[in-house]
Amino acid sequence: MLDQEFKRIGDRLFSEGLVGANFGNMSVRAEGEAGFRITRTGAYLDSGEMPVFVPYEGNAPPEASSEYRVHRAVYRATPHRAIVHAHPVHAVAASLDLEVIRPADSEGRLLCPEIPVVTGEPGTDEIAKNVAEALFRGNIVMVRGHGTFAAGKTLDEAYIYTSIAEYACRILILSGRLRGVA
Amino acid sequence: MLDQEFKRIGDRLFSEGLVGANFGNMSVRAEGEAGFRITRTGAYLDSGEMPVFVPYEGNAPPEASSEYRVHRAVYRATPHRAIVHAHPVHAVAASLDLEVIRPADSEGRLLCPEIPVVTGEPGTDEIAKNVAEALFRGNIVMVRGHGTFAAGKTLDEAYIYTSIAEYACRILILSGRLRGVA
Amino acid sequence: MLDQEFKRIGDRLFSEGLVGANFGNMSVRAEGEAGFRITRTGAYLDSGEMPVFVPYEGNAPPEASSEYRVHRAVYRATPHRAIVHAHPVHAVAASLDLEVIRPADSEGRLLCPEIPVVTGEPGTDEIAKNVAEALFRGNIVMVRGHGTFAAGKTLDEAYIYTSIAEYACRILILSGRLRGVA
Amino acid sequence: MLDQEFKRIGDRLFSEGLVGANFGNMSVRAEGEAGFRITRTGAYLDSGEMPVFVPYEGNAPPEASSEYRVHRAVYRATPHRAIVHAHPVHAVAASLDLEVIRPADSEGRLLCPEIPVVTGEPGTDEIAKNVAEALFRGNIVMVRGHGTFAAGKTLDEAYIYTSIAEYACRILILSGRLRGVA
Repeated sequence: MLDQEFKRIGDRLFSEGLVGANFGNMSVRAEGEAGFRITRTGAYLDSGEMPVFVPYEGNAPPEASSEYRVHRAVYRATPHRAIVHAHPVHAVAASLDLEVIRPADSEGRLLCPEIPVVTGEPGTDEIAKNVAEALFRGNIVMVRGHGTFAAGKTLDEAYIYTSIAEYACRILILSGRLRGVA
Repeated sequence: MLDQEFKRIGDRLFSEGLVGANFGNMSVRAEGEAGFRITRTGAYLDSGEMPVFVPYEGNAPPEASSEYRVHRAVYRATPHRAIVHAHPVHAVAASLDLEVIRPADSEGRLLCPEIPVVTGEPGTDEIAKNVAEALFRGNIVMVRGHGTFAAGKTLDEAYIYTSIAEYACRILILSGRLRGVA
Repeated sequence: MLDQEFKRIGDRLFSEGLVGANFGNMSVRAEGEAGFRITRTGAYLDSGEMPVFVPYEGNAPPEASSEYRVHRAVYRATPHRAIVHAHPVHAVAASLDLEVIRPADSEGRLLCPEIPVVTGEPGTDEIAKNVAEALFRGNIVMVRGHGTFAAGKTLDEAYIYTSIAEYACRILILSGRLRGVA
Repeated sequence: MLDQEFKRIGDRLFSEGLVGANFGNMSVRAEGEAGFRITRTGAYLDSGEMPVFVPYEGNAPPEASSEYRVHRAVYRATPHRAIVHAHPVHAVAASLDLEVIRPADSEGRLLCPEIPVVTGEPGTDEIAKNVAEALFRGNIVMVRGHGTFAAGKTLDEAYIYTSIAEYACRILILSGRLRGVA
C-alpha cells in the first residue's frame, strides 16, 4: 500500500519535472507509532521501494534518507502528516535572490501568497530548525538554492503545494517579474 | 465511455504541460438532459474518474468542480458543447500584462488572432459572466493570472484551442515579443 | 507495418515536444506506386491511424492532410523518400526574425550549418514551391512562423533533422544569441 | 541484463530531456575483459539494443558508437567504470561562453563546484585527450557546444552527475547568472 502511494506521488513529481535523478524525498507519519516512514537514501522517488521507519527520537536506520532530520523536526513541531521535499528548478532559481516569494497567479495568491525563503546547508540543524518553523505557520517553504519542503494532511496535499509553488515561480520568471518581487 | 473520453483528453493536457497537480477542469453537455457533466472537485484530470452531472439551473452536487458556475454560464449563453479549463504557464504569464493576446505564429493568427484577456476571481459571478461573453464570440479566452477557458463542439476541439493558445504565447515570449503585443 | 512506423515516430515527436495537439504531418513515398502515403487531416501524430495514399498528380483524397501539396512538391522535385513536418516552438520563434538559422552547437554546425527560412501561408503554392526548392538542396527548412519541413531517406532521418534544428534553436535562444545570428 | 540496464538509464535520460533523437552514448567496463561495452552507432539510447564490445587497444567494430575513442581514452586514464555522454541543452548553452561552470545551487556546489569546459571536435584525438584529463580529476566535464561526459562507478552515478550539471546550468540561466560565472 504505502510503497504504491509513494510511487504514485513520485511518478507525478517526475512527470511534472519537480525532481530529477535521485533527488528529493518524501515521508508520512506512521499510524499509531512514534515515528514516520521516509524514502531510502539515494532512491529514485519513482522506484516504488518500501519507505523506512524513523522514530521521532533516537537513531535512524542507515538506509533512511539523509534528510530525515528535517522531516523529524517538522513532525515534532507541527501537526502535518506528510512531507514532500523536491528540487523544482524555477522555484530554486527564484529563491537565490528573494527573501520571500509572492506569486502573481491566482492559485498562488490564494493558497500561498507569501512563500518564505530560509537558509541552511543540507544535513545541518539550521535547515531542520528553519524548515520546521516555517511549516508550523504554513504548507510550504523554500530553502535557498536547495529546494521546497511542503507539508499537509497527505502526500497528495504536499505534492500539490509543491506544484503550486513551482508554477508560481515559472509565472514570475516568464513574465519578467523575478527581480521585482522581494 | 465518458470517463475514458475525459481521461484521454486529461492525459494529453498533462503530457503537453497544460495542467499540473489537480488543477483545471472539463465538461461536456449531457445529451438529452438539461445540464452538463463536469470533472470532480479536486480531481486529477488524468484520473479517469466519472464526471458529475450539473443541471443548467438549481443546485450543483458538492462533488462537482467548484468552477461549475463558469461552465454553466457558458452553456447557457453559447452553443458550445464542451469546455476545457487549463492553467498553461506561458499563456498565464502573458495574460498578466496584456489586454489581448495577438499570436505571431501562423496557426495562432489563423485560428485565434485575438485572444481576449478578462478578469475575475475564481468562483465569482464576474468571472462566469466575462468568460461566457468571450466564448459567445470565439473559442478561447484567458482569465488574467488564472488560466484558459476553451470551448467547442467536442473536448478535442476545446483541448486543441488550449494547446494553440499556449503555443502562441510560448512563441511570443521566446521571441521577445511579449511586451509589444498589447 | 506502416501505421506502426508512423506511430513510433509520432510518439517520439510528441515526447520531445516537437509537436502538440493535432498539428504536424508525415509522409513516405509509396514503394512501386506513383505517389506517397501521408497522415490524415486533423489526426494526432501519435494516433497510429493508417496513412492515406496521395498520387503525384491529380486529386488527393479528402482525408489526406491538407498540407499534402507541400509533400507532393517535395517528392516531385527531390529524391527524398520521407518527410516530417513539425511545429517545434524554439525553431518557430527563431524563424520570426531570421533569414537563415546558423547553429552554434557542434551537431547543428556539422549537419545543418545553415537552415534556410522561407515564407508562405499554409495551403498555398508559394509554400510548396519554397519548401521543395530548399529541400532540393538540403534536409531541413523553416517556414517562418509555421514550422519545420525535414526530409531524408527514412522517417527516422527526417525526425532526427527536426530534433537537431529545434535543439540548435534552443541553444541559440538560451545563450542569448538569437538576434546575432542573421 | 546489460541491455536492460542500458535501457533503464536511457529511458531516464530521455524523460529528463538530457538527450534527444539518436544522440548521446553510454558504456561500461567489461568485467574480466580488456575492454568495454558501448551503445551502437546511431542507436536511440532508449532502444534496449545490446551494447557492443570495444577493446582497450586495436580496432573497434564498425557498429560501435563513433565516439568510442573518447570512452577508450577515459577507461585507459582513469579508474571510472561507466560513462554517460549526453547533450543537455542548458549545459551546452552555458558552455558556449564559459571556461568553467560554477553552480549556484546546493547540490551543484557540493558535488561539482567547478565543471570544466574543454574544447575539441567530435571524433578527434583532441576531444579524447581533453575529456580523459578532466575525468581523471572529477566526475563530469563539458565539451564546449557539444555535451557532457560524466563518469563513475556505475551508469547510475554517471547519469546522476549528468542530471546535476544540467540542473545547475538551468538555475544559472533562469536566475540571470549565466554571464557572471566565468
